[in-house]
Amino acid sequence: MKIVCSQVDLKNNLSLVSRAVPTRPTHPILANVLLVANQTKNQVTLTGFDLSLGMRSCFCAEVEEEGVITLPAKLLNDIIARLPEGEVTISYEEEEMEENPLVTINSLSGKFQLRGVKGEEYPELPVVEREEAFLLPVAALNEGLKGSLFAASNDETKQILTGVHLTRNLDTLEFAATDGHRLAVVKTSAIEETKESEEEEINSNPPITEAQNFTITIPARALRELEKILSMAKEGESIALFVDEGQVVFELGQQNLTSRKLDGAYPNYNQLIPNNFERTMVVDRKRMIESLERVSVLSDQKNNLVKFTLNSDNEQVTLSVEAKELGNAKESISAEINGDNFEIGFNIRYLMDGLKALSANEIKFQFNGATQPVIATPLSGAQMTYLIMPVQIRD
Amino acid sequence: MKIVCSQVDLKNNLSLVSRAVPTRPTHPILANVLLVANQTKNQVTLTGFDLSLGMRSCFCAEVEEEGVITLPAKLLNDIIARLPEGEVTISYEEEEMEENPLVTINSLSGKFQLRGVKGEEYPELPVVEREEAFLLPVAALNEGLKGSLFAASNDETKQILTGVHLTRNLDTLEFAATDGHRLAVVKTSAIEETKESEEEEINSNPPITEAQNFTITIPARALRELEKILSMAKEGESIALFVDEGQVVFELGQQNLTSRKLDGAYPNYNQLIPNNFERTMVVDRKRMIESLERVSVLSDQKNNLVKFTLNSDNEQVTLSVEAKELGNAKESISAEINGDNFEIGFNIRYLMDGLKALSANEIKFQFNGATQPVIATPLSGAQMTYLIMPVQIRD
Repeated sequence: MKIVCSQVDLKNNLSLVSRAVPTRPTHPILANVLLVANQTKNQVTLTGFDLSLGMRSCFCAEVEEEGVITLPAKLLNDIIARLPEGEVTISYEEEEMEENPLVTINSLSGKFQLRGVKGEEYPELPVVEREEAFLLPVAALNEGLKGSLFAASNDETKQILTGVHLTRNLDTLEFAATDGHRLAVVKTSAIEETKESEEEEINSNPPITEAQNFTITIPARALRELEKILSMAKEGESIALFVDEGQVVFELGQQNLTSRKLDGAYPNYNQLIPNNFERTMVVDRKRMIESLERVSVLSDQKNNLVKFTLNSDNEQVTLSVEAKELGNAKESISAEINGDNFEIGFNIRYLMDGLKALSANEIKFQFNGATQPVIATPLSGAQMTYLIMPVQIRD
Repeated sequence: MKIVCSQVDLKNNLSLVSRAVPTRPTHPILANVLLVANQTKNQVTLTGFDLSLGMRSCFCAEVEEEGVITLPAKLLNDIIARLPEGEVTISYEEEEMEENPLVTINSLSGKFQLRGVKGEEYPELPVVEREEAFLLPVAALNEGLKGSLFAASNDETKQILTGVHLTRNLDTLEFAATDGHRLAVVKTSAIEETKESEEEEINSNPPITEAQNFTITIPARALRELEKILSMAKEGESIALFVDEGQVVFELGQQNLTSRKLDGAYPNYNQLIPNNFERTMVVDRKRMIESLERVSVLSDQKNNLVKFTLNSDNEQVTLSVEAKELGNAKESISAEINGDNFEIGFNIRYLMDGLKALSANEIKFQFNGATQPVIATPLSGAQMTYLIMPVQIRD
């Protein structure tokens, strides 16, 4: 194999696919990235894979001799990132392939040699039947992931709850995530927003039919990496999603991401969201986040509990934290309140996560009793619903 | 007690003295900062102390009622840093002083209460006889610490080597630090450099006499914090140093730092520095640091060994690392070489530490044999000597 490529291309593509390389690989070869050089296309393909999540990226290079090899991802990344900008040559002698060859990396600054492992030992990425792709607008995915990913469970034993549940129903795309304590749901449009200047093209996309509806649950870990790929997309682009029995593949330009799906029935979350409420409160989001950040200094030391006291007479909500032997904190924020005065307790971390994801200036809270689910929604922008279970206040 | 002060003053002074507060205090009270409010001076003094290092800082405040109290440093810092800019009021009722009082912190945003501990339980900073102060130029201290601190030992069992040895001999101030593997020595001027425009004042500072000579060894940990204080000094300022049997105090404006001295005889390091050399090499410092950073990716995986091969015929030094099962690296740098070709091995970390501290563009290396100490000096700027012991190369 012999390829000549630019240091910048190699660095960027390598750092992307390395995100799928596990830090504690179950098999030694998974600590490596797969490098495939194709002479016909003058293209190099890099792959990182942890048996659940795979990331693949292609870039143009001068391929003087084809080849397939794997190299230790972390070392290779550390070296390539430090090389000076300019041409990098990666090569090894095919006759060395009897055993694992020394791969030479030449740059303007000097020469590295790394022991590679033959490509055939690297596991194949699962193949997905690629007949029909769902085209999803990048903007909708960004909005949906930002508003839901944080609420997925980090507890691997909770299986299906470690994913985000994605539903396409005709022209809406819905994202949901819950860890059992809070639930985040975002509704977005499954069709690319047509700009006014492009109105003549309005009929270029055929309408989505019921046959194109789907529901899948995708591991949050894979979707966090998908966010990295999305950040490279141009405005107005769509990403292709291929789905089969066990796998999904997202494809954007030269990058793709493969992930297993999560099996099992996702909770019927819509039935958890109450329709009627006894009280509502509208507050400034940033002001509330700042107050929560201050009082959290004390709640972090104890049980993470913050108490809201709604007072409709003076149009204020008071946030208070009691950390007995250490002290206490109290801040009041002006709020538009409808309904009787009352007190309710929250886990401050769950509350802050939600307020940070709701990107509007003003947030509407809807309450029933002090032990019933609370809903927070933004007054503008994304169509998001954040449900949070209150915490009982012990006096 | 009741004081009204600015959030910015409180935050800055608190974050400074908190640097002396131990993360794992041997007595619970040491996790607190001492706050003393003086009504006559309208001044608040904050103190942090770990029984070895003490930091004290004063600032102006409106003191409505005097008082002495200690508060948990970390909590207080976290709260004050998050408060909005503007006035902060700190108060407690003196009648509560029977037990530990709840101290109230009022700001524009709301109210915090923290359980304080009575000031009399806080240990006194050691008193140093303040009769004569040595005045040390801030610029000299900065230069000396930058060039020596990194070479002090981090191994607490090495006692005297965990400090920097400071010698004033008439108008020179010398800093030395060694951990047994390398030695850094910086010579600076003990007199404030007089600017040309101030030539008329040239005789304002009386010459330093032999009676004002001193040698002391100060813990590196204290000097790292001194660097923080020095960074607040204005150009041309001097810092006052008070020394007694067991303690030193550095004083700059409203800030002071107290530290115990390290007892014991400091190694006679000057006799370790060879006077004659068989070979010299001059290289570009940045070029060499960049090369070392690249090849260190491999040496870090093994024994930290980098081999220098000096070749006076093609005026190059080749840096090479051999990490057997992983691979190898080789870079060549142009160098002015005098003397026979030869090979020598170094601990790459020690080499990089020294090159980063030597701030000149060009560095001169002086060698004898491959097992004898090597000296690196900058060709311009600070007067610094870096001695490094080579590592034996095993073939």
